Amino acid sequence: MQIGLIGLGKMGGNMRERIRRAGHTVVGYDRNPDVSDVGTLNELVERLEGPRVVWVMVPAGAPTQSVINELAGLLSAGDTVVDGGNSRWSDDEKHAKELGIKGIGFVDAGVSGGVWGLENGYALMVGGDKEHVERLQPIFDALKPEGPYGYVHAGKVGSGHFSKMVHNGIEYAMMQAYAEGWELLEKVDSVENVREVFRSWQEGTVIRSWLLDLAVNALDEDEHLEKLRGFAEDSGEGRWTVEAAIGHAVPLPAITASLFARFASRQDDSPQMKMIAALRNQFGGHAVESAEE
Amino acid sequence: MQIGLIGLGKMGGNMRERIRRAGHTVVGYDRNPDVSDVGTLNELVERLEGPRVVWVMVPAGAPTQSVINELAGLLSAGDTVVDGGNSRWSDDEKHAKELGIKGIGFVDAGVSGGVWGLENGYALMVGGDKEHVERLQPIFDALKPEGPYGYVHAGKVGSGHFSKMVHNGIEYAMMQAYAEGWELLEKVDSVENVREVFRSWQEGTVIRSWLLDLAVNALDEDEHLEKLRGFAEDSGEGRWTVEAAIGHAVPLPAITASLFARFASRQDDSPQMKMIAALRNQFGGHAVESAEE
Amino acid sequence: MQIGLIGLGKMGGNMRERIRRAGHTVVGYDRNPDVSDVGTLNELVERLEGPRVVWVMVPAGAPTQSVINELAGLLSAGDTVVDGGNSRWSDDEKHAKELGIKGIGFVDAGVSGGVWGLENGYALMVGGDKEHVERLQPIFDALKPEGPYGYVHAGKVGSGHFSKMVHNGIEYAMMQAYAEGWELLEKVDSVENVREVFRSWQEGTVIRSWLLDLAVNALDEDEHLEKLRGFAEDSGEGRWTVEAAIGHAVPLPAITASLFARFASRQDDSPQMKMIAALRNQFGGHAVESAEE
Amino acid sequence: MQIGLIGLGKMGGNMRERIRRAGHTVVGYDRNPDVSDVGTLNELVERLEGPRVVWVMVPAGAPTQSVINELAGLLSAGDTVVDGGNSRWSDDEKHAKELGIKGIGFVDAGVSGGVWGLENGYALMVGGDKEHVERLQPIFDALKPEGPYGYVHAGKVGSGHFSKMVHNGIEYAMMQAYAEGWELLEKVDSVENVREVFRSWQEGTVIRSWLLDLAVNALDEDEHLEKLRGFAEDSGEGRWTVEAAIGHAVPLPAITASLFARFASRQDDSPQMKMIAALRNQFGGHAVESAEE
Repeated sequence: MQIGLIGLGKMGGNMRERIRRAGHTVVGYDRNPDVSDVGTLNELVERLEGPRVVWVMVPAGAPTQSVINELAGLLSAGDTVVDGGNSRWSDDEKHAKELGIKGIGFVDAGVSGGVWGLENGYALMVGGDKEHVERLQPIFDALKPEGPYGYVHAGKVGSGHFSKMVHNGIEYAMMQAYAEGWELLEKVDSVENVREVFRSWQEGTVIRSWLLDLAVNALDEDEHLEKLRGFAEDSGEGRWTVEAAIGHAVPLPAITASLFARFASRQDDSPQMKMIAALRNQFGGHAVESAEE
Repeated sequence: MQIGLIGLGKMGGNMRERIRRAGHTVVGYDRNPDVSDVGTLNELVERLEGPRVVWVMVPAGAPTQSVINELAGLLSAGDTVVDGGNSRWSDDEKHAKELGIKGIGFVDAGVSGGVWGLENGYALMVGGDKEHVERLQPIFDALKPEGPYGYVHAGKVGSGHFSKMVHNGIEYAMMQAYAEGWELLEKVDSVENVREVFRSWQEGTVIRSWLLDLAVNALDEDEHLEKLRGFAEDSGEGRWTVEAAIGHAVPLPAITASLFARFASRQDDSPQMKMIAALRNQFGGHAVESAEE
Repeated sequence: MQIGLIGLGKMGGNMRERIRRAGHTVVGYDRNPDVSDVGTLNELVERLEGPRVVWVMVPAGAPTQSVINELAGLLSAGDTVVDGGNSRWSDDEKHAKELGIKGIGFVDAGVSGGVWGLENGYALMVGGDKEHVERLQPIFDALKPEGPYGYVHAGKVGSGHFSKMVHNGIEYAMMQAYAEGWELLEKVDSVENVREVFRSWQEGTVIRSWLLDLAVNALDEDEHLEKLRGFAEDSGEGRWTVEAAIGHAVPLPAITASLFARFASRQDDSPQMKMIAALRNQFGGHAVESAEE
Repeated sequence: MQIGLIGLGKMGGNMRERIRRAGHTVVGYDRNPDVSDVGTLNELVERLEGPRVVWVMVPAGAPTQSVINELAGLLSAGDTVVDGGNSRWSDDEKHAKELGIKGIGFVDAGVSGGVWGLENGYALMVGGDKEHVERLQPIFDALKPEGPYGYVHAGKVGSGHFSKMVHNGIEYAMMQAYAEGWELLEKVDSVENVREVFRSWQEGTVIRSWLLDLAVNALDEDEHLEKLRGFAEDSGEGRWTVEAAIGHAVPLPAITASLFARFASRQDDSPQMKMIAALRNQFGGHAVESAEE
């Protein structure tokens, strides 16, 4: 089938390639003319036969909103738009309404896979009405990994991004779990081969996982991670997960601890710990003693 | 080779079977005569040719200490004892010394695998002197999973149990990660197929793992886990992990949060939340209003 | 001076009384005619001489928005509106703009004091332009406690509610601190007089505070808090504090832990702990053993 | 009455002074001859009439154990020893037994007050048998603050130090609460006078406390705490509080978060966050993009 694909960065570019390998026609657009198949969004729309399907793969927030706005003007009733970017789930219903007024369908798709997706396939979590989702099925089948897993129609509009967001929240806490264990093992004299401990866990243990495999790869490149700073960005989805949990009164202690650890990792000095130091100073005297008080 | 195996419960019994399948001779002892190969520890020791190797697989703490004490009297210089139970790492050095006085070697082995171990193999994390560990290698090879992983000589005496303990700490936080994500997904109306979302994650995602596969199994048996109480025991190793972290001044927020969630799950009512309720009552008036104050 | 006061619930009613005791004229309006001085908002506005000052003391969200909308229609340029309710700080700028279009000033005031405020005074955290805040000064002086503290012009519009929100976040964690300590003391056999330990802390310790005094009051009424359920509502400001922290990438582990403890206290059974139980079941066998695996 | 006092550091020296001001006789011993009243422990014991009372005020652990050992040799049946240092509660029962064999009584006393104690009095939490505690009452009365609070006989041997330890755990979380709130307020543009917000909270709020007063003092000296590093030691009692909680399966999320924040504050770089960075690198490609994956 035919599909328009807007946004040909690292993710979008590889997805175009994977869809084409499956035998479909992709008309790609990117602001960067070096990678773009067409010069304008308008041209992209004209190159597609109706009912058209257009996949949006641009950064969440303003860039996605801007493309949705343009598509609302260019597309026709019966066409379908997929937002495959990292949009906040709460944007999806808004976008569905804006397009729905013109009779244009909307599907949200959380996409996981990173640099491994081109070869291994992309896990897809999809939200939207059945009729819109079904239209996209050949594309989803092209993108997803082989085998029975890696694709789900999670529910209504927004559920795709929501599921992907929760996936990322889980990912934060799993990464934190391995990281905490690694730091503790590195601190203990009796454990002489932390890297080999991690490697051994890849079979027969309860904690074997793809992330563990990646940890072993990382330790093979740099056994004590001496080349790295303990500094971690967060991409927004961890924050949204905690916000969603707060909205639903769900306690999320491990995921939130993982998010906060990232926040702290980015501070040169911790203002809150300055206040702790100041308070200890106040009640302990200027030459703070070894005793708390 | 020959090995004595003390403790033939669910773990020990299956381990005897797996070692025998690999062609070794196992003399097993258990207080339960129905499963025991010999009537007494003394008989077990006499059935083995020197230098003897005896694997202890009994509950941590007093039962293990008691067996170590008995073996110290029964074994001879040049023999080797392996503690494969869930002993606290800090017991290992003590046991190594007690046996070392008599010239008996000591190896500690953290064993992972549960009910899956008989068929899939047991992951082994081993601590001790090279000469003692090497003597056991054929047994370790019999127990471990096939393939390159699942076995490590982690370091000195204690490092095997320490590594296994950290493994369990990581496991706590990974389980908590999936559990938090699952609860949040279940709370949101737009996500109609939480079980299928979990199932889809088994391929192409960052969070695919054996624990995720188990979660899908559990949801296939009971989609909304309605048959279960939200009640989780802890086996001691999570506690020890946090204690070890405190001893080394390592922050362990996600693992500790996971441990505390288990503690809270076992309380019929929370004393600390009674105090919170009491305080709100005190400053808000007896008919507590919707406003905090 | 003259002031209109909208919302005569437990907080608003007492505030009217305290302002009157200071010699000012208060025209109060409430939907409940038994406590209201006037029949309609319109009448309230007509009873005040210009430039008018109207204090809004109704629940946050829709009720406050509705009153603001009405006042925008009834008031005139040069009048001033104070929102003293528990509004989210992010609403303040919106309200300031809506009123500002008509030349009406806006001040946000976080008010603390609860049932104790009538006699002891209300702590006030105020945000807004200097000219609007100054007009209100006699009212702020009437409401605040005697002495040098209890009042601050925190900054721009929104800063009053933001400061009050952070106050409540701190309050959550302080209450949690005492509650955790109390539960631990109650668990230990050697400590025979937990209530008296708390009482003793009221002087000479680092942790003496008004909340501690309230805790002692509560324990005097019910030494082991047996009449209470461990169940705590949250009023929104704790949630907003965490949301604000997430927005600014500030780690807030203690305050967030306190919020999550309240969430958990309201669950009859914990879905996430069901998942933990399910996972332990899966890898431990149906008759879960004492060992983790 | 007469009392021997061993350890005349900042705490012990001021306590000697306060006891003397109350009209009692103190024979003080310190290794530092400049502050010591006697040359040896032996001389101290000889200077006291029986039944003797000796207060030990030296660092917890080995120093305290060493003094207890010496006193066991020097004192007689009917004498009483008080350990007023920061000993771990679990040492108390051991010390009580060691002394009890000789008929010497033992009392443990948690002492709070820091540099403010000389003038304001020291809060005392005392554990031990009634007969031993009563003998000390005049000294406790001399040390404690005036008024009805500041002293408690908490229960059996160990309960004094346990109560003081929990006091410190609560203190950790209260300090963390203010510190988190302060950092958040400092981050927000609309709040222009964070120090004045803190100052205003000293009256009429739910969170007024002595620690808040100290925070205001600190901000008066250095409004944005620019002269301090965000670096906080911990004195052991926070760690013991968490260990005790783990032993009793009590969840302690806020206190533990506060302890972990201190641990993290002392790390130049965070090993665990290196692992997070490494994992993100592995699945995101070497030029990590803004998107999580």
